[in-house]
Amino acid sequence: MKMNKKAVILLSGGLDSATVLAMVKSLNYEIYALSFRYGQKHDIELEFAERLANNTVREHKVVDIDLAMFGGSALTTDKLVPKHENVDEIGSEIPITYVPARNTIFLSFALAYAEVIDSKDIFIGVNALDYSGYPDCRPEFIDSFQKTANLATAKGVKNKNISIHSPLINLTKSQIIRKGIELGVDYFNTISCYDPVNGLACGFCDACLLRLKGFSEAGFNDPIKYSTNRINYSKE
Amino acid sequence: MKMNKKAVILLSGGLDSATVLAMVKSLNYEIYALSFRYGQKHDIELEFAERLANNTVREHKVVDIDLAMFGGSALTTDKLVPKHENVDEIGSEIPITYVPARNTIFLSFALAYAEVIDSKDIFIGVNALDYSGYPDCRPEFIDSFQKTANLATAKGVKNKNISIHSPLINLTKSQIIRKGIELGVDYFNTISCYDPVNGLACGFCDACLLRLKGFSEAGFNDPIKYSTNRINYSKE
Repeated sequence: MKMNKKAVILLSGGLDSATVLAMVKSLNYEIYALSFRYGQKHDIELEFAERLANNTVREHKVVDIDLAMFGGSALTTDKLVPKHENVDEIGSEIPITYVPARNTIFLSFALAYAEVIDSKDIFIGVNALDYSGYPDCRPEFIDSFQKTANLATAKGVKNKNISIHSPLINLTKSQIIRKGIELGVDYFNTISCYDPVNGLACGFCDACLLRLKGFSEAGFNDPIKYSTNRINYSKE
Repeated sequence: MKMNKKAVILLSGGLDSATVLAMVKSLNYEIYALSFRYGQKHDIELEFAERLANNTVREHKVVDIDLAMFGGSALTTDKLVPKHENVDEIGSEIPITYVPARNTIFLSFALAYAEVIDSKDIFIGVNALDYSGYPDCRPEFIDSFQKTANLATAKGVKNKNISIHSPLINLTKSQIIRKGIELGVDYFNTISCYDPVNGLACGFCDACLLRLKGFSEAGFNDPIKYSTNRINYSKE
C-alpha cells in the first residue's frame, strides 16, 4: 500500500487556511494541522480550526504560547483593533494588529512538527495582495524561511528538500474564495475577524473588510453572521 | 543621558550563555534575557539562568513552550540521554539529544522580544567546534536566520539592521572558559548537563564531557559538583 505524503499545515480557522486545507486535501496528503493559542483576543478562531480539522486531518495539535507576554500588538493587548467603514480606508502602513515575529514563530513550530513526523512539506495560507500589510506574509519572507529551515534541521541539512508552500500568496481574496468554493469549502466554518463580538465577526476590522470585499468580488454571499448591521458587501 | 543599547540574549543557564551574558554586559548593553521551559528533562537549568540574570539584566522572561508535544528528542522524551566514558566516544552523527527546530523557535521568540523593546541585537551562545553536532548551531544557520529576521519584522524590513550575534561560534570550549574567567564569570552558577541526577550534573553526557574537557584544556577546575565519582578532567 502506498503511503500518502505527509503535510504540516498552519490552520487558524480563517478563510485563507481553510482554503489551503482543502487544496492540500485535494493533493492527497496525509494532513497534520497546527494551530496556536497565542494570546489572541480572537481565540474563538480555534473552535473554527477544530471544526475544519474534524474528519479531514490525521492529527490536529494546538500549541499554547503566550505572545501577549511581549505585547506590541492590538491582537494580544488592550490596544483597540482599528475599525473602518470600508476597505479603502485601510492604510498602507503596517497596522498595529501586526504581531511581532508571529509567522516566524508559527513556521518554526511547524518545522519542528514536520521534522518529527518526517514530512518535508509545510503549508501556510499567507497572501500578499488582499492582506493587512504584514511583513511576514510576503514571498521574500517565505523564501528566506525555507532556506533557513533547510539549514536548521537534521533532515533539512541531509536532504535539502523542506518546502514552505504558500499557495495563496499571489491570489486576491476573491480568487481564494472562488478556489475554495470550487473545492467544496464551507466558509460557514471559518472566521476571519480580529475582534469578534459575542462570537460573531465585527464587520469593520481589516480582516472582516478584506473578507467582505473578497466575497463581493467573487460574487458570493459570505455565509457567516456579523455582529453588527454591517452593510453586506455581498451580492444578493 | 545617553541610553544604553538594548540586547536580547538567549540564556539557558549553561556555560556558553553565561559567557555570552558577561560579554554582552562588558559591551554596556541594557540586557533583556530570554529563557525557555520547553519540556527539557534538565529544566533545573532555569534556576541557574535566574541566578545568572539576577542583578545583571534589565528584564528576564521565561517562556513556556511544550516541545515535548512533538517529541523526537532524548531531551524531552523518555529516550535515554547517551552517556560515554570520555569525550572521544562522542559520535559524529547528529545525536538523539537534538531537539528539532529548537534554536529556530528560540530565535523566533527572541526576534519578537527584540522588536517589541526596540532592540536590533540578539545574542545566542551557540558554538560549532566543541558542540553536539546540532545543525542549528552552525554559522550558516545563524546567518540565514538573520536574513529571515530582517524580512520577517516591521523594524527589520524598515531598517535592515537586525543582527544575530553568536560570539562563541568559532571558539573552542576552553577558549570560551578562558574568556569567561577573564570577564569574571562564576561558572559555579551554571549547569551544562542534559540529564542531571538529583540536581547535579551527571558527568557522562555529551554536554558534561565537552565541559569537562574544556575546563581541563583551559587549565581550570570546574567549580560545579558532579553526581558521580566522575574522574575529573580538570588539572589539580
